[in-house]
Amino acid sequence: MQIIAERINATRKRIGKAVAERDADFIAREARLQAEAGATFIDCNAGRKPEREVDDLTWMIEVVQGAVELPICIDSPNPQAIAAALKIVSKTPMINSVTAEKVKIDTIMPLARDSGALLVALCMGDGGMPDGLDDRLKAAEALLKAAAKHKISPDRLYFDPVIVPVSTKASEARAAIETVRHVMTKFGAHTTCGLSNISFGLPTRNTLNRTFLAMLMEAGLDGAIIDPTEPHMMSTVLAARAILGRDEWCMDYIQAGRAEKLD
Amino acid sequence: MQIIAERINATRKRIGKAVAERDADFIAREARLQAEAGATFIDCNAGRKPEREVDDLTWMIEVVQGAVELPICIDSPNPQAIAAALKIVSKTPMINSVTAEKVKIDTIMPLARDSGALLVALCMGDGGMPDGLDDRLKAAEALLKAAAKHKISPDRLYFDPVIVPVSTKASEARAAIETVRHVMTKFGAHTTCGLSNISFGLPTRNTLNRTFLAMLMEAGLDGAIIDPTEPHMMSTVLAARAILGRDEWCMDYIQAGRAEKLD
Repeated sequence: MQIIAERINATRKRIGKAVAERDADFIAREARLQAEAGATFIDCNAGRKPEREVDDLTWMIEVVQGAVELPICIDSPNPQAIAAALKIVSKTPMINSVTAEKVKIDTIMPLARDSGALLVALCMGDGGMPDGLDDRLKAAEALLKAAAKHKISPDRLYFDPVIVPVSTKASEARAAIETVRHVMTKFGAHTTCGLSNISFGLPTRNTLNRTFLAMLMEAGLDGAIIDPTEPHMMSTVLAARAILGRDEWCMDYIQAGRAEKLD
Repeated sequence: MQIIAERINATRKRIGKAVAERDADFIAREARLQAEAGATFIDCNAGRKPEREVDDLTWMIEVVQGAVELPICIDSPNPQAIAAALKIVSKTPMINSVTAEKVKIDTIMPLARDSGALLVALCMGDGGMPDGLDDRLKAAEALLKAAAKHKISPDRLYFDPVIVPVSTKASEARAAIETVRHVMTKFGAHTTCGLSNISFGLPTRNTLNRTFLAMLMEAGLDGAIIDPTEPHMMSTVLAARAILGRDEWCMDYIQAGRAEKLD
């Protein structure tokens, strides 16, 4: 299970300030906290000001790599920023993300191919936010095909089903779950999910987020873009792994229980 | 979603004492607490002493019916006790339970047929605890067939996939989930689950129980034998209903959030 830790995102006020002030200690601490909580990738998003993104992102990555041993998830829509980041990463990174839009495929996939990076593939095409299962699968199949053309093997792809708030349209949550099940059984690829959008506009968001995460993991989800320092999310990951037979003898779960880390 | 509230069980020490002392206030309060928390059936189990069961169970049911408007789930392996209970229930009850064992089918199904009761059908046969998906489906199909013979329509059946602790054999949890999915898509019947056994022997059982409940509901589960006064379980039910489109406009979820009932 890949835990792509999402806290170091410069569109968040506190992180943006740290990036603007080149407060390396603050960013390093954020990286360490997430690593200790179970992250397997540290997402780095420097999307504060487009004109500063290359500088900000490369600085951010250097700081994170100085603080923890984990690989970087390069989180940017900007091919120039991604290219600059790829030059300095010390371990095989993940690129977050490509979509099935032609311009995205043409600019992002060559970067993934040449670098050997893993690639988050959002199940959406030129039509914007997806609507229903068929829309998502159409985008997913286009992405799988485009990846093959670019010599990116399916096992380097992490498909994200794209989450719509359940308060907006309830049937979209089930479509996202079925997308994960389809990809995991048919594609020989991986899945991940930036899932907190599910609870947008509703109370007690944690309860919805953890319940949805359990359902997605049952459908096969083997990656998640979350804040691993939130105990309810990592507890759900650990419990789901135990239930689904992905944690032999429940050893990780028992260990987390003994360390009083379960919520 | 049927919430079969499990607290009034005389094998629990405090309930057993109340039954022995004919402490009607205590039992009535337990019934009211569960009704207020969202129960749709009140399970009544008087399995304290076999020779007292008929007396104890009928007393218990009278007390519960005096306290709340909800129907009773008659929880007994004893046909005599079930028959006595059926004579005094004021609403269509549920009988908990029958298995695919011949002796059970022959004694319990006629009682369900004649009374019009709903019936919990445990997916296990003469071989004892089920092992894997096929074992469960074999028992389920035998139960469906036997019900047809007894003129009990599928929509009166609540199949329970029978939960084995995940610490004992991890693959059984997935078999239980797939049993629910199969019954809900193929049988025109319902499902329920006494699910807390999943976490037997492991720490922080609540986390496992709620995570497993979310997965089962995604597979279609439309009943659960739980303690509705446990906020994490009812919160998971409410969140899962919202995510799966079973709570229009998320009204129940929002209302529970406003009442600060979500965990």
